[in-house]
Amino acid sequence: MPKPEKHVFVCSQTRPDGHPRGCCAQKGGSDLLQAFWKELQKRNLFDRISVTYSGCLGPCDGGPNVVVYPEGVMYSQVTKDDVAAIFDEHLLGGQPLERLQCPPAIWG
Amino acid sequence: MPKPEKHVFVCSQTRPDGHPRGCCAQKGGSDLLQAFWKELQKRNLFDRISVTYSGCLGPCDGGPNVVVYPEGVMYSQVTKDDVAAIFDEHLLGGQPLERLQCPPAIWG
Repeated sequence: MPKPEKHVFVCSQTRPDGHPRGCCAQKGGSDLLQAFWKELQKRNLFDRISVTYSGCLGPCDGGPNVVVYPEGVMYSQVTKDDVAAIFDEHLLGGQPLERLQCPPAIWG
Repeated sequence: MPKPEKHVFVCSQTRPDGHPRGCCAQKGGSDLLQAFWKELQKRNLFDRISVTYSGCLGPCDGGPNVVVYPEGVMYSQVTKDDVAAIFDEHLLGGQPLERLQCPPAIWG
């Protein structure tokens, strides 16, 4: 694949049941990853945007988390219903969504 | 964790034995990830640099692959012996290593 304009990393970290930090996989991260891939395929943007799963991105309490580079924008509590807007507004429109961004005190 | 100055993603993709694309995990990616984490710990750079494992980054033939953001520099055929130089020259020195970079025809 060519170097993407935007590279989306979706946290898919797993942890055992009852782990104090929880994990994005249990908070919907796995379904979210599938939703990102599905949207990428639907829009046929493989040559401009990459979607990759990743290990823990840090702010577990707010998961599922997604980070978009090169900007380094971290989204928290992302749901499948947010995916189309992230494509429209940020990945294609160039304007990160304010409402989903991780607070600057945590990631800033 | 705060937003890192550099975010290193180390491909740890697994695939079944005999898969035609192979995978970074079988080419040393798992040991490489450990080497990056060990170096991060040794240098106590947790507040400036993040090291995260990731799924497939694309150029499987050249694995193990490592991508560094925000620059989007892709390194291929990285070994444990390269990790200290990547920290010294790129992550801290700001100068990506030419010798390990994925060819522009593949990632450029």
